[in-house]
Amino acid sequence: MTSTVVPVDVVALQQVLDGRWRAVREQARELARDPRFGVTVGADTEQQRADVLERLLALAGAPYSGRGFPTKYGGQDDVGGSVTAFEMLAFGDLSLLVKAGVQWGLFGGALLHLGTARHHDAYLADVINGEVLGCFAMTETGHGSDVANVRTTATYDPAADEWVVNTPDDDARKEYIGNAARDGHLAVVFAQLITGGESQGVHAFVVPIRDRTGRPMPNVRIEDCGLKAGLNGVDNGRLWFDSVRIPRDNLLDRYGRVDADGGYTTPIENKTARFFTMLGTLVQGRISVAGGAGSAAKLALTIALRYGDVRRQFAAPGGGEIRVLDYLGHQRKLLPALAKTYALHFAQLDLVTLLDETTPPLEEVAAAGDTIEDDPRRRELEARAAGIKAIGTWHATRTIQDCREACGGAGYLAENRLPGLKADTDVFTTFEGDNTVLLQLVAKELLTGYRDHFGELDWLGTARFVTDQAFETVLEKVGGRRLVQRLLDAGRDEEASLLDRSWQLEMFEYRERHLLETLARRLRRATESDDPFAVFNAAQDHLLSAARAHVDMVLLQAFADAIDAHPEVAGTLNPLCDLFALSTIEAERGWFQEHGRLTATRSKAVLAQVNELCARLRPCALDLVAAFGIPDEVIAAPIAQGAEAVREQEAGRA
Amino acid sequence: MTSTVVPVDVVALQQVLDGRWRAVREQARELARDPRFGVTVGADTEQQRADVLERLLALAGAPYSGRGFPTKYGGQDDVGGSVTAFEMLAFGDLSLLVKAGVQWGLFGGALLHLGTARHHDAYLADVINGEVLGCFAMTETGHGSDVANVRTTATYDPAADEWVVNTPDDDARKEYIGNAARDGHLAVVFAQLITGGESQGVHAFVVPIRDRTGRPMPNVRIEDCGLKAGLNGVDNGRLWFDSVRIPRDNLLDRYGRVDADGGYTTPIENKTARFFTMLGTLVQGRISVAGGAGSAAKLALTIALRYGDVRRQFAAPGGGEIRVLDYLGHQRKLLPALAKTYALHFAQLDLVTLLDETTPPLEEVAAAGDTIEDDPRRRELEARAAGIKAIGTWHATRTIQDCREACGGAGYLAENRLPGLKADTDVFTTFEGDNTVLLQLVAKELLTGYRDHFGELDWLGTARFVTDQAFETVLEKVGGRRLVQRLLDAGRDEEASLLDRSWQLEMFEYRERHLLETLARRLRRATESDDPFAVFNAAQDHLLSAARAHVDMVLLQAFADAIDAHPEVAGTLNPLCDLFALSTIEAERGWFQEHGRLTATRSKAVLAQVNELCARLRPCALDLVAAFGIPDEVIAAPIAQGAEAVREQEAGRA
Repeated sequence: MTSTVVPVDVVALQQVLDGRWRAVREQARELARDPRFGVTVGADTEQQRADVLERLLALAGAPYSGRGFPTKYGGQDDVGGSVTAFEMLAFGDLSLLVKAGVQWGLFGGALLHLGTARHHDAYLADVINGEVLGCFAMTETGHGSDVANVRTTATYDPAADEWVVNTPDDDARKEYIGNAARDGHLAVVFAQLITGGESQGVHAFVVPIRDRTGRPMPNVRIEDCGLKAGLNGVDNGRLWFDSVRIPRDNLLDRYGRVDADGGYTTPIENKTARFFTMLGTLVQGRISVAGGAGSAAKLALTIALRYGDVRRQFAAPGGGEIRVLDYLGHQRKLLPALAKTYALHFAQLDLVTLLDETTPPLEEVAAAGDTIEDDPRRRELEARAAGIKAIGTWHATRTIQDCREACGGAGYLAENRLPGLKADTDVFTTFEGDNTVLLQLVAKELLTGYRDHFGELDWLGTARFVTDQAFETVLEKVGGRRLVQRLLDAGRDEEASLLDRSWQLEMFEYRERHLLETLARRLRRATESDDPFAVFNAAQDHLLSAARAHVDMVLLQAFADAIDAHPEVAGTLNPLCDLFALSTIEAERGWFQEHGRLTATRSKAVLAQVNELCARLRPCALDLVAAFGIPDEVIAAPIAQGAEAVREQEAGRA
Repeated sequence: MTSTVVPVDVVALQQVLDGRWRAVREQARELARDPRFGVTVGADTEQQRADVLERLLALAGAPYSGRGFPTKYGGQDDVGGSVTAFEMLAFGDLSLLVKAGVQWGLFGGALLHLGTARHHDAYLADVINGEVLGCFAMTETGHGSDVANVRTTATYDPAADEWVVNTPDDDARKEYIGNAARDGHLAVVFAQLITGGESQGVHAFVVPIRDRTGRPMPNVRIEDCGLKAGLNGVDNGRLWFDSVRIPRDNLLDRYGRVDADGGYTTPIENKTARFFTMLGTLVQGRISVAGGAGSAAKLALTIALRYGDVRRQFAAPGGGEIRVLDYLGHQRKLLPALAKTYALHFAQLDLVTLLDETTPPLEEVAAAGDTIEDDPRRRELEARAAGIKAIGTWHATRTIQDCREACGGAGYLAENRLPGLKADTDVFTTFEGDNTVLLQLVAKELLTGYRDHFGELDWLGTARFVTDQAFETVLEKVGGRRLVQRLLDAGRDEEASLLDRSWQLEMFEYRERHLLETLARRLRRATESDDPFAVFNAAQDHLLSAARAHVDMVLLQAFADAIDAHPEVAGTLNPLCDLFALSTIEAERGWFQEHGRLTATRSKAVLAQVNELCARLRPCALDLVAAFGIPDEVIAAPIAQGAEAVREQEAGRA
């Protein structure tokens, strides 16, 4: 094992990781040092809720809440900055993060994107400053993932010029609604719009749920969801509407409006297309969750690596005691996860940039009324957001778990933050879109080009509006593979070095493409079958693998692109990128051998190379987490603070 | 896919699962229905601790606490029954479980196994009835896993005929001690015994830590560990001893005693052997944790499978909505985990039987004083306990996580039990022996036969006392492989059906043996190297794989043996055992291909067969969890109660 030193310039590396919204990150770091936003552990639920509300209102006065809103209402018209600020907020109290996400992301975002000027004028300034607190009431008990089929109704009554919002039965109650149990005044409620006896599909309505004294409005029933695994500073609740009447104007009518006589007009005639355009404007929430999950993983790794660097357990053969991070087993638990965290970070930077570039200036959004964001890259954005959210949140859950175990009993103590990180982010894998459903959405999007073979695929359970784009076009589009092509053109062969980036990319791309092509062939049979569901279902694991392979490719590409763009830190990032690529290939080496892409010998060599990369990166592990730039004040965990103290103590003892 | 129905006779199956201590299980089920032991969620820490203490005292009066103690002191002399009762208690409040484990398993067990008649007479009756509450103070902050090197000292002072127990520095404080922060009166403290200026290694001492009014004893400092991820009903604390004086008699002196002049005598001259004999008597704790983890996994699967059987998300192509458990992806999340839970259950039954058979009647233990339990199967027991504890607790953590995700947002609500199960059992992977360290112990035990090649291996970080047994002997011994041999003799070949049990066993055994042989070869180089740690460390992942492969083999064998012994339920268990075997081979198919034991084609066939087994077992999934016999009162989760209710509701709506 000849290990060359991996050079790390922490300052330069942090600059690269900070990326385009570096100023926002610096501001967020300042905010994180503000004791008003400090993390407390151990408060009971009522106290937690009160604390989080107080912090939310403080945040309304800080440079945070308005970032994603038009300047006209006191905002800053900076979509990318607002998602970045959310990501940074995730280093702190995660209940505050989620409550902020409900208030300014989901509730405020729905008013902004689904409403029109009169809604903006009526609400946005007060939403930004925290005068009005709101809920995003989409999910129903019986339809968590299938939003198109929610069963709450909003029926227009022309005689009164009002909507009658109704919950038909218990299964259609609004479930798990943040801000509902305690603090919310208004709710944006998703319901089937019915006028003139006809349903026009799901639309959003502003429904007051509490008066100013905090009592539920007449005919609105509110129930507390009670204690959860985590995020207990967020007051999740259930909502029932018993023929609640609201003015006609309370329909958020950017994509469909009703005149006084009940006549319905819309800029998008196709009901399915309309629904997905509406949902598409809300993609920011999913991207935000992916960013938040990334921050939680970074924080967990920072704690576990710092502790592993000083913790000792057993005597070394030559005397002294071995630091646990010197064990290969410990490195394998943490360093591939660190490499993937970097990969996800670069993919997230790209994703946020794409979001920012495809969102028109918010003043225009606010003014436009019924125009549609028609940037063709929006569909690409939605698929990438779905895939990165799914893979990123699963990665966070798993990484935090591994970090907890790597810290032993100390990792189980609340003061060391890992229990809170784990409990609070656990639900990220199933909210803002259940990860399994999101991967199906990714696969379906990729299968677009095969559409002629098997129709609309709505029974995939993703019900994504499908256009006629060719498969190849999609593949080309997703991420713009110029670098890949250049590297592929450079040529490689079976005997290429495992550290040859073009070989790694080729392996990732082959897996993605092959899984997709064979999947399309299998699904074609669904159309010829008496039982199409059975055919689809037998291929579901195949479909999920294809989606995962696609996201893996997006990640490797983002990592490679970042290195290409930042030669000043390539010496640091190259071995880290190799570790991400090879640990992914290692995990899939069963598949690669099955498909003749790895010989037995080479497969074993991948394993050995992963071990060697772990050994090479171990000495700079602390630098690699330092570059995340998480202020010590929010890391807080005693086991992560003590490196110097432990060393001094040991020196004193020796 | 031709699926034949898997027959399930739930009553017969439960009888098989209940096994030899069926009566104990039935009694535990009665106890579980007693509202005094009900599970509450959402209490704050102080309230939880008070509730759990109350329950513990109630348990002291119920048929539970004395089961593992001599009848002479009010016990029942039933070691196997006591471990089984602990396993069953784990369906309920897990804080109560752990507190009971500290009181009667660790504290009471140390008094019984390390003490002699005068300690038994002095304490055991009061330990059983809860009059005296105690701690097990082994772990130190600086030495969690390396108990032989704890740094607390107990120095004999002949002038006063007393021990002076001392904590030399902060790193040597006793850490994470259950019952210490609030309730414990006595602690069994592990410390280096020093007499006549000489250290005799780690011994256990009874040290009073609180007076009857609950105040710490003079010179004993107690600190609360504070909030934890879970188990907050257990009062974990830290202990410091500032030259605390205790009578000479307070040494638990079964394996080493000191006379009034300070002369030390012991029945086991070798210090290392003595230490491990002492630790070996405490193996019951590790076996108990494995059983508790199994119960938690069973409960989680019961909840997730029941909910998956009624929850619907998307429309089916032919109309109606699909139950989520009908999706292959959902089945794959839960059914292989269910199969492994069964495998672990059968391995646990064998383990408890072995423990019971190798423990002499407790009256004898109590009377014998300084005799040693010298059943040669004790070493086998220790290695198996370590392996099954590691694999079983990791399995529980992962299964509960997957069940949580499978239940979506509902799985995140405390009332549905999964958050509590996850948080409370999370620490099982790192307490009673860190899983990674335990697997190293397993590997080291298996390597015994290679000892001549590389010496004592103490730098493996497991410091297990090594005898001269040959490797082959160990392999033969571990589990007594008669059935395996019979099946292997029956012959099989590369083209054997994937469902051929003898082929499956052969694959498992090949993997175990090959990993072990090649590991031995690699480690031999350590003795020839200037840097033996580097050689060992480069092979650490190999070593951990070998240990895992061994445990996998133990599990498959236990499953196959159980089927052999119970032909009346073979029709049910065979496909479940196939699913365990093939999903394990699937997970390791990269390795099997690397080693020429699976062709690419056959590897793909394994995948397809796992899918088919999932489909076959899906219709009887609820019966398979029903056979665990968990009373509805302790399942408690609303999402697991509602199958009938949901069906009625849906019928009413349709």
